[in-house]
Amino acid sequence: MPELRKDPIIGRWVIISTERGKRPADFVVTPPPLKGGMCPFCPGNEGITPKEIIAYRVDGGSKPNTPGWHIRVVPNKYPALRIEGDLNRAGEGVYDRMSGIGAHEVIIESPNHKDVLSTLSPKQFEEVLWAYRDRIIDLKKDSRLRYILIFKNHGEAAGASLEHTHSQLIALPIIPKRVSEELDGSLEYYNYKERCVFCDIIRQETMQGVRVITENQDFLAVTPYAPKSPFEVWILPKFHESHFENSQKHHYENLAVLFSDVLRRMDKVLSSPPYNFILHTAPVKNGDSIPHYHWHFEIMPKLTKTAGFEWGSGFYINPTPPEEAATFLREAKV
Amino acid sequence: MPELRKDPIIGRWVIISTERGKRPADFVVTPPPLKGGMCPFCPGNEGITPKEIIAYRVDGGSKPNTPGWHIRVVPNKYPALRIEGDLNRAGEGVYDRMSGIGAHEVIIESPNHKDVLSTLSPKQFEEVLWAYRDRIIDLKKDSRLRYILIFKNHGEAAGASLEHTHSQLIALPIIPKRVSEELDGSLEYYNYKERCVFCDIIRQETMQGVRVITENQDFLAVTPYAPKSPFEVWILPKFHESHFENSQKHHYENLAVLFSDVLRRMDKVLSSPPYNFILHTAPVKNGDSIPHYHWHFEIMPKLTKTAGFEWGSGFYINPTPPEEAATFLREAKV
Repeated sequence: MPELRKDPIIGRWVIISTERGKRPADFVVTPPPLKGGMCPFCPGNEGITPKEIIAYRVDGGSKPNTPGWHIRVVPNKYPALRIEGDLNRAGEGVYDRMSGIGAHEVIIESPNHKDVLSTLSPKQFEEVLWAYRDRIIDLKKDSRLRYILIFKNHGEAAGASLEHTHSQLIALPIIPKRVSEELDGSLEYYNYKERCVFCDIIRQETMQGVRVITENQDFLAVTPYAPKSPFEVWILPKFHESHFENSQKHHYENLAVLFSDVLRRMDKVLSSPPYNFILHTAPVKNGDSIPHYHWHFEIMPKLTKTAGFEWGSGFYINPTPPEEAATFLREAKV
Repeated sequence: MPELRKDPIIGRWVIISTERGKRPADFVVTPPPLKGGMCPFCPGNEGITPKEIIAYRVDGGSKPNTPGWHIRVVPNKYPALRIEGDLNRAGEGVYDRMSGIGAHEVIIESPNHKDVLSTLSPKQFEEVLWAYRDRIIDLKKDSRLRYILIFKNHGEAAGASLEHTHSQLIALPIIPKRVSEELDGSLEYYNYKERCVFCDIIRQETMQGVRVITENQDFLAVTPYAPKSPFEVWILPKFHESHFENSQKHHYENLAVLFSDVLRRMDKVLSSPPYNFILHTAPVKNGDSIPHYHWHFEIMPKLTKTAGFEWGSGFYINPTPPEEAATFLREAKV
């Protein structure tokens, strides 16, 4: 059983995979390349993955765990957390731990091995977003869980271990530190100003324009004012909503169009870079909607070799002003 | 002039290098390898670097900026911050910024191009620690500065851009977020328990023994209970002291011996991995000593390809339990 452990000084929880403990030699050996071999995410190979949780099927007619799907969600074969069991919070002197309860799922974004997220049709991209929403709605019912983290690692340098286009979901019994910080910071702002800090950012960015990449009726894509990495992009809903899963149908439609556009601009300007994105949304137990938090996506192309020192110190040096990055992305012909 | 900008939600400051703004093509081109070409840190090439700030010379007889030194500290040729100017704090709507005042220095750890830190003699290693201390003592006099961050990137994968062994120092007009978090967290513990959390950790680790790698009279090397990366190591002074620069002479001697030993164990177990280390010490303006904070070094070998998703979410999955990592490092024959 994996274990969740808390840093006694700064209060950050980490997952320790006690089961598949990596030994020194595992790090020295070069991992196999993404390409080649049988792809477990391709149609026809459904038997290689654990049984599907949900799948969107073209005509609704094909059977589970057989071809005919266009989106398929399966449990991760090597999960960081397990869904069975109790939380079992316990202390050990100054330390705190609990059992690694949670879920770890893979969202296969297309049956076509050659697709990448940026080249999907807006309709197919929208289906990916619906899959995120449907899984959140379902997992919210589990009272042990406090946060559902959705993210994508694209490209080997960004941590993808399989080439076939996919996102991941990790459902957690704790709230990740970065999310807590955002909640605390935005609540502090709200208590002082009685306005949502994200709504204020959207107003100011729209007025100034210098960091705007593109927008449509419902969404705005900007480079943030104080980005930790070059060409970092945030996609923000123009309407106030704390929970991703509570948005309206036409919002997902418009998000798919804008998100796809942003990824294609990145591909153009940065030669199809590896990237990570993370859905920032309110914790599941915060009730239906909160006035101070505002869901959004943060996209970070993986352009520099390391973040080792920055990662350990919480101190970032960014070699590209966001205004310059925005200009390149805004002017890209896609 | 570089600029310091504050994230309006979580309050993290970042440096934006407005001067040497990297354009998309700069990221696409592969950087030149570390080896080859003329090394600016080798004796005889002192004219290539900016003029030295301090140097320790063998007989005290050789002139500044000429060979004969065994430790040399120079300004970074491409500094992230500049020492000239005023802080000029300013707002811009919801945003805050200030001018990028500070210092960025390089500590050349040996005149010998073939040396690496782990193979230096304990005496030479100790000189490196004295250089850290001397630079902190000197920079503390500048009332604009609030924190002095000392770190090392070893190996290309950990972000080193020059092969010749060196550490870096960045003096900042702000306190890095991770340091603030440690200060806040350890103060909270102190207010509750009236004890230093680090002192409690040292007591518990010494008693349990399972995460201890090695120790001597003054220092303890352990793998932390909740490490964010595999084989992460902390070196903690057994005596309570908040400021690195306030330690006694024999402390630096004993630290050099233990630190060197730990790096050689890492080299042995992990095949000379790239790594980052960071000195965690109290801010310069905290007065002489504070009861709740405890300086230490954190060493992170760079074993996994990316930290993209972890970096953005503040949520870490560690595939190696620290107890297993400690066993490998403890049992290494060096």
